[in-house]
Amino acid sequence: MKHYKLVLPEHMNHQQSLFGGNLLSWIDEVAYMTANLQFPNHRFVTVALDNVEFKHRIDCGEIICFCATLEKQGSTSLTYFISVSGTRKNAEMILFETRITFVSVDEQGLKKSIC
Amino acid sequence: MKHYKLVLPEHMNHQQSLFGGNLLSWIDEVAYMTANLQFPNHRFVTVALDNVEFKHRIDCGEIICFCATLEKQGSTSLTYFISVSGTRKNAEMILFETRITFVSVDEQGLKKSIC
Amino acid sequence: MKHYKLVLPEHMNHQQSLFGGNLLSWIDEVAYMTANLQFPNHRFVTVALDNVEFKHRIDCGEIICFCATLEKQGSTSLTYFISVSGTRKNAEMILFETRITFVSVDEQGLKKSIC
Amino acid sequence: MKHYKLVLPEHMNHQQSLFGGNLLSWIDEVAYMTANLQFPNHRFVTVALDNVEFKHRIDCGEIICFCATLEKQGSTSLTYFISVSGTRKNAEMILFETRITFVSVDEQGLKKSIC
Amino acid sequence: MKHYKLVLPEHMNHQQSLFGGNLLSWIDEVAYMTANLQFPNHRFVTVALDNVEFKHRIDCGEIICFCATLEKQGSTSLTYFISVSGTRKNAEMILFETRITFVSVDEQGLKKSIC
Amino acid sequence: MKHYKLVLPEHMNHQQSLFGGNLLSWIDEVAYMTANLQFPNHRFVTVALDNVEFKHRIDCGEIICFCATLEKQGSTSLTYFISVSGTRKNAEMILFETRITFVSVDEQGLKKSIC
Repeated sequence: MKHYKLVLPEHMNHQQSLFGGNLLSWIDEVAYMTANLQFPNHRFVTVALDNVEFKHRIDCGEIICFCATLEKQGSTSLTYFISVSGTRKNAEMILFETRITFVSVDEQGLKKSIC
Repeated sequence: MKHYKLVLPEHMNHQQSLFGGNLLSWIDEVAYMTANLQFPNHRFVTVALDNVEFKHRIDCGEIICFCATLEKQGSTSLTYFISVSGTRKNAEMILFETRITFVSVDEQGLKKSIC
Repeated sequence: MKHYKLVLPEHMNHQQSLFGGNLLSWIDEVAYMTANLQFPNHRFVTVALDNVEFKHRIDCGEIICFCATLEKQGSTSLTYFISVSGTRKNAEMILFETRITFVSVDEQGLKKSIC
Repeated sequence: MKHYKLVLPEHMNHQQSLFGGNLLSWIDEVAYMTANLQFPNHRFVTVALDNVEFKHRIDCGEIICFCATLEKQGSTSLTYFISVSGTRKNAEMILFETRITFVSVDEQGLKKSIC
Repeated sequence: MKHYKLVLPEHMNHQQSLFGGNLLSWIDEVAYMTANLQFPNHRFVTVALDNVEFKHRIDCGEIICFCATLEKQGSTSLTYFISVSGTRKNAEMILFETRITFVSVDEQGLKKSIC
Repeated sequence: MKHYKLVLPEHMNHQQSLFGGNLLSWIDEVAYMTANLQFPNHRFVTVALDNVEFKHRIDCGEIICFCATLEKQGSTSLTYFISVSGTRKNAEMILFETRITFVSVDEQGLKKSIC
C-alpha cells in the first residue's frame, strides 16, 4: 500500500532540508494506517522500528512515497517492510528502507490474536 | 546531556497513548541539539537511527527524559547512545535505548572533519 | 490516485469530531500531490474548490480515504474530482465528494501550458 | 463580525505563498466562532461550504481579514457570507467570498432548533 | 481592536485546561496584528510583556476575546493594553489583563520612527 | 534545571526571527516540567508570569537554553527564576530573565499544600 507526503516549510530544519524527525514520524503513521486498513477491527501499537539510514537529502516541495508491504505475520504481530522513495532527475529513487513491527492488543493492552 | 519532553494531548494517538512517531521525532531533535552544543560551529545531518523497541506505553502528562551520551566520535561522524526514561510508580525506569549517528557536512553537503 | 489520512486527537474539535477545517485542508493537499505526481515539473496553484457538503461525523482514530480523479484537463488548468470515503459498520462509505481546480503557473505566477 | 489571521512561515507552501488548505481551514474556524458568539449555548456543526475561488496569491506576513455576516437563519441552520480581504498597495481588497452553513445539533447529533 | 481564539483540543494541557503557553503566545500574536493594522508599513518587534496573572481556568471549546487598546505611543514604540475575556454563566468576564510593547525597526533591526 | 529548545522554521515569524509567542510558550512549558520533576505527584497550574523584556533577536537554527531555578516555595505555590541564554560569537549570553509562579491544586482545582 502506497502513501504520499508533501514536504512543506513547517517540516524543514534550519539547513533547508527535511527534519529527520518528521520522516521517522511519517514511517510510523503510514505503516499504522496500512496495518489498520489491512486488518480492520484491531488495536495496533508500534513495538519496533528497524535501523534506518538516511542517505539522501530531502528538499521542501518534494512528494515522498512510502510503500508498506506486509513481510511477516505472526500470531499477534505484523512486520511491514517500508520503502521510501522520491523523484531525482525525473526518475524514482529509493531514499531508504526499513521495517516496523506492530502488535495487536486488547483494551487492557494485552496481546491479542490477529484474525 | 539530558533533555525533557512533556507529553501533551497534541502528541497522543487515538488510543490515548503517545503516538510513536512523536517519540522518534524527539530522539532526532534532542540528539541533534546535543551534537550542536558539544561541537559548535558544525553542520550536522542525521544519517542513521539504530533499531528501536517500544516496550512501554507512555501516557498524556508524562515527562520523558532523553539522556544522550557520545559513544563514538569518527573523523566526520558522531554516534550518540540515547537512553529514554520515565517515571513508573515513583521510580525512574528505562523505556528504551537506541543509537543515532550524525555526519558533519559543509555548505555543499560534503563530509567535513569534526574538530 | 488514493491518499489516506489518520484522524488524530490534534485534528479534533471540542465536540469530539473531526474539525471541518482540517478536512478542507486535506482536500487541497491530496489533490495538489496528485496533480504534481501526474504532471511533474509544473508549478500548480489552487484556484477553486467546488461546494462541499459534510453529511457524516468523523471520529478520532478513523482512517479516511481521498480518491482524486482527473476530470478535466484544460490548456493551463486541471480539475480533480475528489471522493472522500470512510468505513462505517465494516463497509466503505462515501462521506462526501467535491471538485478542486489548479492552474499551472510559471515563476512569475503567470499561467503556463500543461504538457 | 471580523476576524484576523497573521500568515506565518508555518502556513506557507513551498512556493512561498499561503497553502490554500490553511485558508479553507480558517474559513471554517472564524465562521464557527461567529456562530457561537451570536448564538451562544448551541452546538454547531459545519454542513456545507460554498464554492471558493482563489484569485490572489497571499504572502507570508500578511494579515487577512475574514468578515462573517449572517445571511440566512433557518429553524436549525445558519448560513454565513464570508468575505476575505487583505491589503494590496495600501488599500483593502477583497480576496474572495464564499458561504458556509452550520446546523445546530443536540448531544446525540440530532438537529435542534436555534433560539 | 478585538480578536477571538477558539480553544481546540490541540491547545490543552493534560489536566484538561488550556495550556498557559498558548495563551501567552496568542497575546503576542493579536497585539502584533493590531499594531500592524493600525500602523501599516512598519516592522514591529515585541520588546516587552508586562506581568500576567492567570486567575481563571479556560476549558476546551471556549471562545476567548482579546481586546487590544493602544495605551501609549512613543516615537519608536507602541504599548497596548490587552484585556482578555471569556464567557462564564452567560456573562462576559475579564480573565486577565496585561500590556505588551513593540518597537518599530528598519530592515537592519535599528529603531525607526513611527509615523 | 536546564532545558533546551531548537529554533526551527515552524517557530519563525515572517521577519525571519523567532516569533515571540513561541518563546513565551516555552517559558511556561520548561518551568512546568521543572516543577513536576522536583515536586512529583502534584498538579500545578500557572498563575503568574513576571514581566519579560526581549532584548535580542533569535534566529532560526539557534539552540536556546532555559535555566529554571526555584526561587521561592510557599505553602501552595512555587516561583521559578527563568534565565534564558543563547550563543553569540561563541560565548553564552543571557537573552532575558523572568519569573513564573505555579500553584498546586487538587482535582477540583482548589489549592493544595506542597509537600
